[in-house]
Amino acid sequence: MKYYDVIVLGGGPAGITAATTARRHYPKKRILLIRSVEKSLIPCGIPYMFGLLEDPAQNINPDSILHSRGIEIKIDKAVKIERKSRIVYLASGEELRYERLILATGSLPAIPKIPGIELENIFCIKKEWPYLLKINSALENAEKVVIVGGGFVGVELAEQIRLHRKKEVTIVEVLPYCLYSSFDEEFCFEAERELEAMGVKILAGKKVGEFTGKKGAVKEVHLSDGTVLPADLVIVSTGALPEVSLAKEAGLEIGPKGGVLVDRSMATSDPYIFACGDCCEKFSFFNGKSVPVRLASVAATEARVAGANLYVKRRFNPGTIGVFSTKIGNRAFAAAGLIERLAIEEGFNVLVGETASPDRHPSVLPGAKEMHVKLVFDQYTGVLIGGQVSGGESVAELVNLLSACLLHKMTAMDMSAFQMGTHPMLTPSPAGYPLAVAAELATVEKLKQTDKRNFLASYCEK
Amino acid sequence: MKYYDVIVLGGGPAGITAATTARRHYPKKRILLIRSVEKSLIPCGIPYMFGLLEDPAQNINPDSILHSRGIEIKIDKAVKIERKSRIVYLASGEELRYERLILATGSLPAIPKIPGIELENIFCIKKEWPYLLKINSALENAEKVVIVGGGFVGVELAEQIRLHRKKEVTIVEVLPYCLYSSFDEEFCFEAERELEAMGVKILAGKKVGEFTGKKGAVKEVHLSDGTVLPADLVIVSTGALPEVSLAKEAGLEIGPKGGVLVDRSMATSDPYIFACGDCCEKFSFFNGKSVPVRLASVAATEARVAGANLYVKRRFNPGTIGVFSTKIGNRAFAAAGLIERLAIEEGFNVLVGETASPDRHPSVLPGAKEMHVKLVFDQYTGVLIGGQVSGGESVAELVNLLSACLLHKMTAMDMSAFQMGTHPMLTPSPAGYPLAVAAELATVEKLKQTDKRNFLASYCEK
Repeated sequence: MKYYDVIVLGGGPAGITAATTARRHYPKKRILLIRSVEKSLIPCGIPYMFGLLEDPAQNINPDSILHSRGIEIKIDKAVKIERKSRIVYLASGEELRYERLILATGSLPAIPKIPGIELENIFCIKKEWPYLLKINSALENAEKVVIVGGGFVGVELAEQIRLHRKKEVTIVEVLPYCLYSSFDEEFCFEAERELEAMGVKILAGKKVGEFTGKKGAVKEVHLSDGTVLPADLVIVSTGALPEVSLAKEAGLEIGPKGGVLVDRSMATSDPYIFACGDCCEKFSFFNGKSVPVRLASVAATEARVAGANLYVKRRFNPGTIGVFSTKIGNRAFAAAGLIERLAIEEGFNVLVGETASPDRHPSVLPGAKEMHVKLVFDQYTGVLIGGQVSGGESVAELVNLLSACLLHKMTAMDMSAFQMGTHPMLTPSPAGYPLAVAAELATVEKLKQTDKRNFLASYCEK
Repeated sequence: MKYYDVIVLGGGPAGITAATTARRHYPKKRILLIRSVEKSLIPCGIPYMFGLLEDPAQNINPDSILHSRGIEIKIDKAVKIERKSRIVYLASGEELRYERLILATGSLPAIPKIPGIELENIFCIKKEWPYLLKINSALENAEKVVIVGGGFVGVELAEQIRLHRKKEVTIVEVLPYCLYSSFDEEFCFEAERELEAMGVKILAGKKVGEFTGKKGAVKEVHLSDGTVLPADLVIVSTGALPEVSLAKEAGLEIGPKGGVLVDRSMATSDPYIFACGDCCEKFSFFNGKSVPVRLASVAATEARVAGANLYVKRRFNPGTIGVFSTKIGNRAFAAAGLIERLAIEEGFNVLVGETASPDRHPSVLPGAKEMHVKLVFDQYTGVLIGGQVSGGESVAELVNLLSACLLHKMTAMDMSAFQMGTHPMLTPSPAGYPLAVAAELATVEKLKQTDKRNFLASYCEK
C-alpha cells in the first residue's frame, strides 16, 4: 500500500496553505494533496470570472505552487477514511496510508428550498470550473439577471455582471440591506448607493417565494410580497455549508454549526487528523461561540495553524476574528470583528467612535476618497471589539491593522495615540487620521462617564 | 493680564493636534494657539506644492479646524517664557498667563556649512509660505536643479520637479543610497530605479564640497571627488534640528539630540509645560536611545499624548517606533521600526523573513503590483523589531499594521498565523499574504536552530 506522511484532502486555499505550511515546518515529510476537481480555482476571484477577468482561466491556481515545493498532487476523490489503520480510500480504488491527515474539504453552496429552484438557468456558485463556465455561457444569452442573496458574493456578482456584461441585474435580499450580516446599516447604505449608481436594482427585505419557467427554463422570480420579476438567469448565492460527509462517516466529532470540530491546534477529535477552512467549525475570538464564517482568508490562517502542528504543537488559533473586505463601484468596504448591531445582540455594552476624513492630504490630491471609520469598543473595559471602514482601496489593509488591534485587545485609549505613518499621497493626515480620531471620540465618551470632574472643570487653578 | 488655561506654541501638526486633543479631553478650558506664521502649512505636502498641486495654496491647513472647536488663534511670536509666574511674552509686547503650556515649536532646517551656501538660488525647505513661494518662482526660470540630500524630502522634491516641472534634476546624497537612513539597501535600490526611470540623476556616496556662482547666484555644485555639476537652482534638504531656543532660555532640560526633554507623559522638566513634535526629544521604542526622527505622524501622536495629559495623566508614550511611507513614481515605500542594517548596528541578532507577492489575486487584475515585504525579528525572542514594504499604495496602511505588531511585540510565530482579510481587487492572496509568509520564513529559520529533530525527521512513525 502506498504511504505518505501527510495527506491533505482538498485543493482550495485551506488545502494549498496547509500543504505548503506542512512542507515548511516538516521539510523531510512526503506530502500528498488530493482534490476531486481538475483545476483549483481562486474562490474569491469567482465573481470576477464573469466580468473583469478577460479569460475565466485567469482565475485558476497554478499547480506549480505545490509542485515547486515537492508536494504531490492527485486528482481523485476520497470516499472513506479508515482511522484505525489510517487509510484513505479513493474513488479510483486506490488506498493510501497516512501518518497525518488534513481535512480541507471546503463547503458546498447552501441551496434554499424554493419551489422551482430545479429550473434551467438557475445556478448557485459551485467552486467547479466546468460548472462556472456553464454560468458564463448562459450569461451570453441572458438579459435579465436576478441574484438571490446580497452577501459579498451576491453583490460582487451583481457589480461584475452589470458593469462588464451590461445586463439588467436585480438583487433580492431577505435581510433589510445587502451585506447586512457584515456591516452596520450606514455602511450597507453606502454600498447599496454604489450598486444603484451603476444601475443594479436592489430589493432588500424581500423573500423569494417561487421560481416559474417556460419549457423548463426560469422565466420569473416571484417574491412573497407578490412582486414578480422577469428573469432569464438566476444566481442563488445564499451562503455555504461545510462539506463534512467523509468526516461524519469516519466518526469525527461535528460542531454545532455543522463543521468538523477542532481544538485550538486545529486537531479534530482524532489526534492524527486535522481540519481547516470551510469544512471546520469556527469559534468567535470574542465570546467562543460557534460562528458560521466561510472565508478564504480564515481558511488560510487556520491552515497555517494546522500545517504547523502536525507533529509538534507550535501555534494555536485564538478564535476567529473575522476580517472582510470588498470593492463595490468606486468604494472599498472592510470590517473586522463585531459590528455594533451584532455586538449588542451578543450582549455587549458598546461604545462607538465614528468619523470620516479624506484619505489623502491635502484632500485635493488626485484619487482622494472620503474614509469612513467606525470603531466599536466594549464599554466596561474600553477594549476594541470591532471596526468597519469604507473608502479607497487602502481600507483593506487598514482593516488588517484593526485585526491586529483586536487580537491584542487594544483599548480606545491605546488606539487614540496609535503610532501610524502618514503620507500626503497615501493616507489621511496625521492630525485627522480617522482610526486615532474615532478611538479618541470613544475614549472621551468613556471619560465623560468616569471622570466628570475634569469635564466640568474650568479655570481650576486661577 | 490676559489669561488662558492652555497655551499652545506652534501651529504645525503637533500644535494643531495638541490643541484639539486638549479640547476633547478638557472641554471647558480656554485654549489659545500661537503661531508666528500667517498660514499653517501641511509640512508633508510641501514637495507637492512644486508639482502635483495645481495651486500651492492648496497645501494650507484651514484655521477652521481650530475655530470650529473653540480654539483661539493668535499670530505672534513668543519671545520668552517666565515659568515661575507662568507667563508667555510675545513679540507684540503682549503678556499672557497660562495654566498649562504646550511647546510645539517644531524644527528648523539643518544647514550644512558648505562654502558658497549663501549664494542666491540656493534654498532649504523652511515651513514658511512666502519663502516656499520664492522657491516656486525661482523654479520657473531654472533649468538644472540640484537637490542636496536624498532623504524623504529630497526624493519627493526630485520626483515632483522632474515630473511636473520637467527640469533636469540631480540628487547628491552623501550616504551610499537615497533613503539609506530609512530602508535597507534592496528597497533603496528599488526607489532609486523609480527615480532614474523618470530621468532623475542620482549621485550617491558623494559629498558637496562647494557652491560657486556668477553675479551672486549659484552656477555650479562642486563635489569633493572633483565632479562639477552645473546648477541654476539648489535645494538643500539635509534634515532638521529641533527649535528649542525658548525652552533653553527658560531653563528647561534639553536631551542628547538637542530636543526638549520629556517624560513618557510628554511633560518637560517643568510639570506645567509639555512638549511634542519636532521640538522635543524622542526615545526609541526598541532600546530607549535618543533618536532624531522628525515626522508629522510622530508629532501628531505625541500631541495626542501631551494634550490628554495636561491635567490628569491619561496615556503614555511607549517610545518612538518610527513609521514612514512615501510614493516614488509607480511604487510606494514604507517602513516601521528598525531596518536590518541599523538593528545590527544597535547590537541585535536578527532573523529576517523576506518575500514578494502580487498585491492582487489573480495577479492579472488591473493595477496589480509586486508587493515586497521584509520583516526583521530579534533572533532570541522571535519578536518583530522592524518591517519594510514596497508595492502599491496600500503599503502605507500595511506598514501601520506592522506598527501595531511592533507595539505588541508580536513574534514571527504569532504573525505567521495572522488573521488578515483578503480580497482579489484589494490585497494579495490569502495563501500568499506576504506578511504571513515572511513571518513564516523567519519562524522556520528559528525552528531550524531550535528543533533540529523535526527538521531531520522523516517517516518517523512508519
